[in-house]
Amino acid sequence: MTRILCSHPNQIFTLHDFSELFQSAKSTVCEDIAIIRDTLLEFGLGDLESITGAGGGVRFIPLADNRDRADYIHKLCTTLCDPNRILPGGYLYMSDLLYEPKHLCRIGEILAAEFLSSKPDFVITVETKGIPVAIMTAFALGCPVVAAGRDGQITEGPLVSINYVASSSRRMQTMSLPKRAIKEGSRALIIDDFMKGGGTARGMVQLLKEFKVDVAGIGVVIATREPRVKLVSNYTSLMVLEEVSEKENRIRLSPSEWIAVN
Amino acid sequence: MTRILCSHPNQIFTLHDFSELFQSAKSTVCEDIAIIRDTLLEFGLGDLESITGAGGGVRFIPLADNRDRADYIHKLCTTLCDPNRILPGGYLYMSDLLYEPKHLCRIGEILAAEFLSSKPDFVITVETKGIPVAIMTAFALGCPVVAAGRDGQITEGPLVSINYVASSSRRMQTMSLPKRAIKEGSRALIIDDFMKGGGTARGMVQLLKEFKVDVAGIGVVIATREPRVKLVSNYTSLMVLEEVSEKENRIRLSPSEWIAVN
Repeated sequence: MTRILCSHPNQIFTLHDFSELFQSAKSTVCEDIAIIRDTLLEFGLGDLESITGAGGGVRFIPLADNRDRADYIHKLCTTLCDPNRILPGGYLYMSDLLYEPKHLCRIGEILAAEFLSSKPDFVITVETKGIPVAIMTAFALGCPVVAAGRDGQITEGPLVSINYVASSSRRMQTMSLPKRAIKEGSRALIIDDFMKGGGTARGMVQLLKEFKVDVAGIGVVIATREPRVKLVSNYTSLMVLEEVSEKENRIRLSPSEWIAVN
Repeated sequence: MTRILCSHPNQIFTLHDFSELFQSAKSTVCEDIAIIRDTLLEFGLGDLESITGAGGGVRFIPLADNRDRADYIHKLCTTLCDPNRILPGGYLYMSDLLYEPKHLCRIGEILAAEFLSSKPDFVITVETKGIPVAIMTAFALGCPVVAAGRDGQITEGPLVSINYVASSSRRMQTMSLPKRAIKEGSRALIIDDFMKGGGTARGMVQLLKEFKVDVAGIGVVIATREPRVKLVSNYTSLMVLEEVSEKENRIRLSPSEWIAVN
């Protein structure tokens, strides 16, 4: 039962499902759920939530222990501050971590825990680097992902496109979503790997407006300290990048304040 | 313990890890592992493997029940055969499923189970649509992902690039990998969402050759029936696409033979 619940975060399973599968009484299933819940909570491994009513049942919430979380993000900062990660042009090499399921899983759980209460119906990101983080955040939330394309791809049917300026490249870019990918009136969580000026995030907000979709939140793995005023007003980042100095061969990166406090 | 093992497929945990965490004797941990293993096997939910020796411990293998697997792929085919999925140009709309963690998780487990014995060190794919499947396959295998770029991106440092012809577009394309992303002499599992002529997969094989990396296998979600002879000789697909007919408003898609047989 633990295997099934933990491998399907935020998906509701009914007592009936389990009592059928394991051929046991619902009361036994109930008792077992209580035991699993206590154990998960005791070791800070997550929580089980009971949902009453017609669509009722139980679901697993992969909440990370807050103290553990601060430790983890701190270690991640240390790893990323290795001067060998400085790329020509003052970029930071982080693709290895952003494509490592072990890290993705943890990062996704932390972001999901932050936005669980804002009840997003889906996660949206823009190709390409944001996709892995978006997938794992959506996995922890138990909802689907939609990836906006950077150019109009012909294979997806009718598209809605907008032009935007990404602060990192300072070039005009196009972002598009297939019309069939999104349901009007739903709620979206915007997830990306990196935010500098917030141009890409604002592009996604504008694109979502075309679909009459509400923004449940904006979460990124790393945001730069400068510019302090971003093009979107509300966002959550796990880490803050203060400086990448090619000349002094130094990276300064720290956990965001809320990570340490909560 | 089940939560920890199942949330970290194919990652080795030592008895010491668990006996520290739960403050219990190694013999108790051992007994509990045996109980978990029996339960997982009984309900076809996976397996636990004990590894002896210095780096020894226990790891979770998310093997899917074979009968369940055939049922699942069959249902997936039915969903995908909905004529509303036909896109202009005879393409098949499947982005919604390929970005849905529930399906990705299952597809990733099935592909991972097929290639577990060929012991890949990492999973490789090419942007963009292949990334989600690659991430979830790597998650089930407990190894990292490397995503080849379709154009030379400046932010990743020195690149190795090759030109190839993708059969679906019939255009010359460029595929590149940052030099630092890959270790010489390791083994790669090539994963993609779709294969028509096999040009993209062959491109990846050639690119890997530049890095002196062995190919542990090639796995795709859907391969087309035609052309029967692909540009790569050995590949595994979950489904075979026989036909997308815009004129007759019909899709013919079926599970690959090995899915039903095994």
